[in-house]
Amino acid sequence: MPHEHVETHFMATNVVRDVVIGMADGLTVPFALAAGLSGAVQNTHLIVVGGLAEIAAGSIAMGLGGYLAARGDAEHYEQERAREYREIKEIPEEEMAEVGRVFQSYGMTQAESTPVVEALSRRPDAWVDFMMRFELGLERPDPARALWSALTIGGAYAVGGFIPLLPYMLIKQALTALAVSAAMTVVALAAFGYVKGRFTGMRPMRSALQTVLIGGIAAGAAFLIARAIS
Amino acid sequence: MPHEHVETHFMATNVVRDVVIGMADGLTVPFALAAGLSGAVQNTHLIVVGGLAEIAAGSIAMGLGGYLAARGDAEHYEQERAREYREIKEIPEEEMAEVGRVFQSYGMTQAESTPVVEALSRRPDAWVDFMMRFELGLERPDPARALWSALTIGGAYAVGGFIPLLPYMLIKQALTALAVSAAMTVVALAAFGYVKGRFTGMRPMRSALQTVLIGGIAAGAAFLIARAIS
Repeated sequence: MPHEHVETHFMATNVVRDVVIGMADGLTVPFALAAGLSGAVQNTHLIVVGGLAEIAAGSIAMGLGGYLAARGDAEHYEQERAREYREIKEIPEEEMAEVGRVFQSYGMTQAESTPVVEALSRRPDAWVDFMMRFELGLERPDPARALWSALTIGGAYAVGGFIPLLPYMLIKQALTALAVSAAMTVVALAAFGYVKGRFTGMRPMRSALQTVLIGGIAAGAAFLIARAIS
Repeated sequence: MPHEHVETHFMATNVVRDVVIGMADGLTVPFALAAGLSGAVQNTHLIVVGGLAEIAAGSIAMGLGGYLAARGDAEHYEQERAREYREIKEIPEEEMAEVGRVFQSYGMTQAESTPVVEALSRRPDAWVDFMMRFELGLERPDPARALWSALTIGGAYAVGGFIPLLPYMLIKQALTALAVSAAMTVVALAAFGYVKGRFTGMRPMRSALQTVLIGGIAAGAAFLIARAIS
């Protein structure tokens, strides 16, 4: 099985990617904000208010941002596709020369690439598909995915954000809540990083270490800044 | 000039993309968090503390996340590249058949694709480049870019975040500061969306409207949640 890895790579579906995008920031930023506020206030009530406001803001900003980006990609693809159809109809010789140049960039002579160029020129749909991928480097996006992508990213951010915030909801004293939150979040970040590593083909332990490090550095910086100015 | 648009697309360099990634969230999330806290506290001092903690957390999380993602992409690319070199050496017939299948997926017969397949098989470097792009769909990342990408994303987040926070630093009364912050941020979001639209080939006015809408919805939700629970 020469392409075992590619199969693994394909398993990292778009849904997994969206969960990873949302949860990576959801676990990190609300945790770091709550840690930062713990350096400034004694009572956890205001930390919970700030944390929930941040979760709402972050999940909406990331979800809506993902939605509009996916919609934009789909529209961009369709525009480029329409343009390629127009061009192979209006200036077919130039477009055939462009296909030839794609192959020349891989060191082929004109004689070697001519059969493929001519075969493509007889099949407009395949020709356009070829130009989209090989000349423009664009993959066809699924326009129906935009909404699900937005909900998945936003939902994963919110789920991730509740984990570090939960201790502040149950414990009144900020620094005690911070200690429990840090312990819970380190475990969650490590588990998330490990699973992410398995899905993306990275060494899981290394991936776990990286996500914990990012969360720790972000939270440490937020805590020190908040303590310094409050 | 048939591919005028492609030129425009190339102008949206990686630096611009990184600035867009960082600033989109940097303008939105700290603004929404500060708006949310304005719904819960009267004095702006704590909003500034929370806002600065969020900017530190967000810019570090996004910057480090971008750094590790770029490094991971570069390593993934090199691993796949080494694997392709191994495969064209060890199982060249299978790899030639794979190139043939790429062309068959564009409706070509074996006879039509054979000259290209054979030409590639005589040039290992070009062959591997071809497989990387056309079989695996991978573009060569620039490994030196990871650090700059991280600094650009994190820096853009911080710059974006300071705009909505500035009024809270100068005005003591939270709701007054919120009004000034909202006015400044709407202008900044619209300008950012407009410029972003010009760089990404989207209609600038529509892009401006979208970024303002995302910021407004995120801030509105954060404000209502904070006010409801405080």
